[in-house]
Parts: sequence; structure tokens; C-alpha cells
Amino acid sequence: MLGGDCILCRKIGSLPQAASPDCIFEFPQSVLFLGPWQYYRGYCVLVARWHATELSQLAPQDRHAHLEEMCLAARAIEDAFRPKKMNYELLGNQVPHLHWHLVPRYADDPDFKHPIWVAIDRAKDDKSALRRLEQGSSDRAETARILRNQLAALMARRS
Amino acid sequence: MLGGDCILCRKIGSLPQAASPDCIFEFPQSVLFLGPWQYYRGYCVLVARWHATELSQLAPQDRHAHLEEMCLAARAIEDAFRPKKMNYELLGNQVPHLHWHLVPRYADDPDFKHPIWVAIDRAKDDKSALRRLEQGSSDRAETARILRNQLAALMARRS
Repeated sequence: MLGGDCILCRKIGSLPQAASPDCIFEFPQSVLFLGPWQYYRGYCVLVARWHATELSQLAPQDRHAHLEEMCLAARAIEDAFRPKKMNYELLGNQVPHLHWHLVPRYADDPDFKHPIWVAIDRAKDDKSALRRLEQGSSDRAETARILRNQLAALMARRS
Repeated sequence: MLGGDCILCRKIGSLPQAASPDCIFEFPQSVLFLGPWQYYRGYCVLVARWHATELSQLAPQDRHAHLEEMCLAARAIEDAFRPKKMNYELLGNQVPHLHWHLVPRYADDPDFKHPIWVAIDRAKDDKSALRRLEQGSSDRAETARILRNQLAALMARRS
């Protein structure tokens, strides 16, 4: 089900992958996009293909498949960039369409102990700090390329 | 596997339920506790019974069971308190033992659009604001009782 007023439904509706340089992988139930805050290199957002606001709205087999895709996506980020920790967050307070923030956390992050939203909130009035969090130190296209290759390899091992 | 240095391993090791007024439900793979920030009434933390730091370390069937318990726990919180949105967060940057923050979010929260950590961070130097977030407006034991009943009913319907 696609809802016309939902920006994530529109994002999903505007695929195929070739149209979006941020699209990393198209799973059956969800689509993985490179996320905005690349200080956390490899940060991705996994967006459900259908419009639902809560996991409890899904049929058990759909929920299982969706969560398996979440785990596969996170595994690819881990394998690619070897973070110290992975953070998984399903929020949706601003955009209530199921999507997971999959955030690799690194040991050299001075705010490592806190969820990323604390650093982002503190930086909100400081454009250069925000830009640093957004851009990180790696090329976005190269990060996307590495993740696509990692996911392709991971999926090939499973099939 | 229980690790002696891990506070969540110790918390799990100190069960049975009777010993902890915050223990809501003992699942086969994890244990649900009432969480500290009861401004978000019904906020719980679901702690894995075994020491693992990442979902990717689990065998597929254990991961599936663990995530199913996460969904059941969240469903009970939703059924009990009818929040506007549920937030699910697996972080572990401070305590790297698998645990989910299951946070019901309510429409009358002025910070509804943001993850709870932003409000908690902003309140960190204001004891009365912190106390307000910690205590909420409901009795903790009553919230725990409602959740226990809800989970018992939910599990009874499944068996």
C-alpha cells in the first residue's frame, strides 16, 4: 500500500535503484538507503516497501521477513566498516512509515556513549558542526559502493 | 553465557522475578523490565538472557526468537497504554549486552518528534526536569501491574 502524503512512500515509489544514488539494496520487503549522517560511516535507513506505522500492524510472516532484512542490512554495514557497535532504531515520530536507522558507531567518536541524536541536537545551531556530522570524512558514493558490494556478497552466500 | 563484569548479566542472574519489582515478564530468551524514564509511561527495557553484544552474533533461530519477544513486549505496551507511536532502540554503547529500549511516545509530549535522549540530555543539569522524566505522573508499581496483566493476556491468547 502506498500513501500519497507519505514521503517514504514517495521515495519507495520513485525507485528503481538507478534513479537514486543513495539506494543501496532492494530487498523483497524493504529498501536500504544510505543515510544522511555519514560521520557515522555507513549509516543507512531501511524503509519498508508498504505503508505501516507499527511493527504490530504486520502479519507475523511479513514482520519476520522485515526484521530479517534489517539484520542482513546491519550485518553488511558491520562487515564493511567494522564499527565498535551497531545501533538499531525504529522511531518514526516525524515520518510514521516503518524505517530503521542502522547506525555504525566508532571508537573515535567523542560522543560514542550516547545515541547519535544527542550530538545532532547539540550541533543544530552550528552549521559547520552539522556539516561535519552530515559529510563525515569519506566519499558518499564510495561508501555506497562498498555497501552494495558487501550486500551482494552476503546475499550470494545465502542463496 | 553470563559475564561477571556485565551489569545486565548480573541483573539477569539476580532473578527470579519476585526479587525485582521492575521485572515485568520472563520470556525464554529475554527478560522485560520497567525502564527508568516513566514520563514515557510503560517504557521498558528488554534484556537478552545471554551475553551477546550484537544481533549478528546470534544463531538465526535465537535471533528470530529474541526479535519475536521484542515484538510481543512492544505489543503489550501498545495494548496497555495506546501510545501515539512506539520507539524501538537497540543501542548498547554504554552497556554492550543486547537490550532493547521499548518506548511508548505520547501526543502530549512537547518533544514528541525527537528521540527521548534529546529531552534527557537537555535535562541533565536540571534535577527537577530529570525527576519529571524519571517519575512521570503514574505510580510505577501500578504501571508494572498493568503491563504484567497485559503480557499474561497476550501470551494466553497465543498458547
